[in-house]
Amino acid sequence: MPEQASANSPASAAGRESFGSRLGAAMAARGPLCVGIDPHPALLKSWGLDDDAAGLRRFSLTVLEAVAPLAAAVKPQVALYERHGSAGMAVLEEILATARDESVLSIADAKRGDIGSTMAAYADAWLRDESPLAADSVTLSPYLGFESLRPALDLAAETGRGVFVLALTSNPEGASVQHVGGRDSVARRITAAAAAENSRYGGNLGSVGLVVGATVGSALTDLDMDLAAVRGPILAPGLGAQGATPADLRATFGDAYPLVLGTSSRDILSAGPQVGGLREAALRTLDGLRGQ
Amino acid sequence: MPEQASANSPASAAGRESFGSRLGAAMAARGPLCVGIDPHPALLKSWGLDDDAAGLRRFSLTVLEAVAPLAAAVKPQVALYERHGSAGMAVLEEILATARDESVLSIADAKRGDIGSTMAAYADAWLRDESPLAADSVTLSPYLGFESLRPALDLAAETGRGVFVLALTSNPEGASVQHVGGRDSVARRITAAAAAENSRYGGNLGSVGLVVGATVGSALTDLDMDLAAVRGPILAPGLGAQGATPADLRATFGDAYPLVLGTSSRDILSAGPQVGGLREAALRTLDGLRGQ
Repeated sequence: MPEQASANSPASAAGRESFGSRLGAAMAARGPLCVGIDPHPALLKSWGLDDDAAGLRRFSLTVLEAVAPLAAAVKPQVALYERHGSAGMAVLEEILATARDESVLSIADAKRGDIGSTMAAYADAWLRDESPLAADSVTLSPYLGFESLRPALDLAAETGRGVFVLALTSNPEGASVQHVGGRDSVARRITAAAAAENSRYGGNLGSVGLVVGATVGSALTDLDMDLAAVRGPILAPGLGAQGATPADLRATFGDAYPLVLGTSSRDILSAGPQVGGLREAALRTLDGLRGQ
Repeated sequence: MPEQASANSPASAAGRESFGSRLGAAMAARGPLCVGIDPHPALLKSWGLDDDAAGLRRFSLTVLEAVAPLAAAVKPQVALYERHGSAGMAVLEEILATARDESVLSIADAKRGDIGSTMAAYADAWLRDESPLAADSVTLSPYLGFESLRPALDLAAETGRGVFVLALTSNPEGASVQHVGGRDSVARRITAAAAAENSRYGGNLGSVGLVVGATVGSALTDLDMDLAAVRGPILAPGLGAQGATPADLRATFGDAYPLVLGTSSRDILSAGPQVGGLREAALRTLDGLRGQ
């Protein structure tokens, strides 16, 4: 990714283009594919790897080797590293650094959320240059209110990094929180807050993204959510093994489809452990997302 | 804490009493105090420690030495360890193991939440015997729906561990999610779900607790939340520096006060770095909680 500021994209204090600008450029150049790096125990086993830190490392480096040249972003699933304690987190540090070296944007899928100085500590962990876990962006969970995420929103703007805030997910039990409130639902409030926040990024793709499930179906229209107005990236997990095709994505997101970063994990990962097989699976998904 | 099963408390498959039984016994014997272990950068500095893994370790072990003999539980704030990457998480592993050795219950304040096999991975990380980060309990965030936390609810029951689910917090921006829904608010739904879940623990204190801010004021009655019916522990952060007195806790929680585990962090921690000062501050808070 280009790290220098250009005339029409805001440079951060760190001298790095904003995350939204960098991601927008990557999506334009490569297509809107994010590959999940999910070293689930069952996948490790099917790859012939042990369910330990060495297995995690081999798995993750193999996925990176296969997809770093062609994906707009990679998304390591933090839970699967945390499961191995500090040894797993050390592998994650290496994977995030390798993604940086190989010029593919990273999304740490951590779903963190807290308030005040504790939220500031999570922001420090994932969004500060000096942190061993620094990623290009991190996923956040807003149960404590969108505004509780303020320390991460501000640090991301300062360091040219980004966030993806959980908004509307496709798991059936998500409705019991996200759909509550009728015309002024929780999910709609999160979406509106992200749109407001992205005004700081001017005409560029904003650095405050949302997580919206690829298989939410009609919920977007039922809840009257205007995703196009968010003007930030929409991370849409659920492509492939979880049930959505690229055509479904287009139908579900409509006008907002240009903002959508389609995310596939198991569908691509189960094509491993050979780099060639992984790459072919990723290219196939990418072709679908590009409408080819 | 006694680890063997007794006649009237359900033993887990791991041969350990349920978390609720163990916590109830500790609250009865010691009083309802949980001490937060929050190695914030400013606190490290005021203790004359560096903001690095060695500083975290010294800080945390000192707090444990001071309060392990008198608190019902300790609550390390995971964000503040994660901030130092894998080196910080290695310190947290040591602190959790030390708490176990010193027979004080641990609450890993991680506010984790996800779905499906990813949620199962978080459950593995914090609630499985073999995990380097195994704690007696962990805090969870339910933006994806209470039921999305199922893998942690079930693993906790299996291993004699517990969870505390975010319900109603006192930060002003929390209302934009938690209060939504009128008479059937998000916070009330979480509370009702926890109550239903605790029926599996029979007449004992359940192992599914809630996080409810000590300074929520009238929101509990405004939202018609019946905390006494939860029959699980209520973790109430906000005692001391954040504004609530033990008398406030009694007034706010009413009938549910016997379930409340009052949590104090900064108020006690700022009395360090001497063990004697920390212990005195903890005993003072404990006296207030016991009504002495």
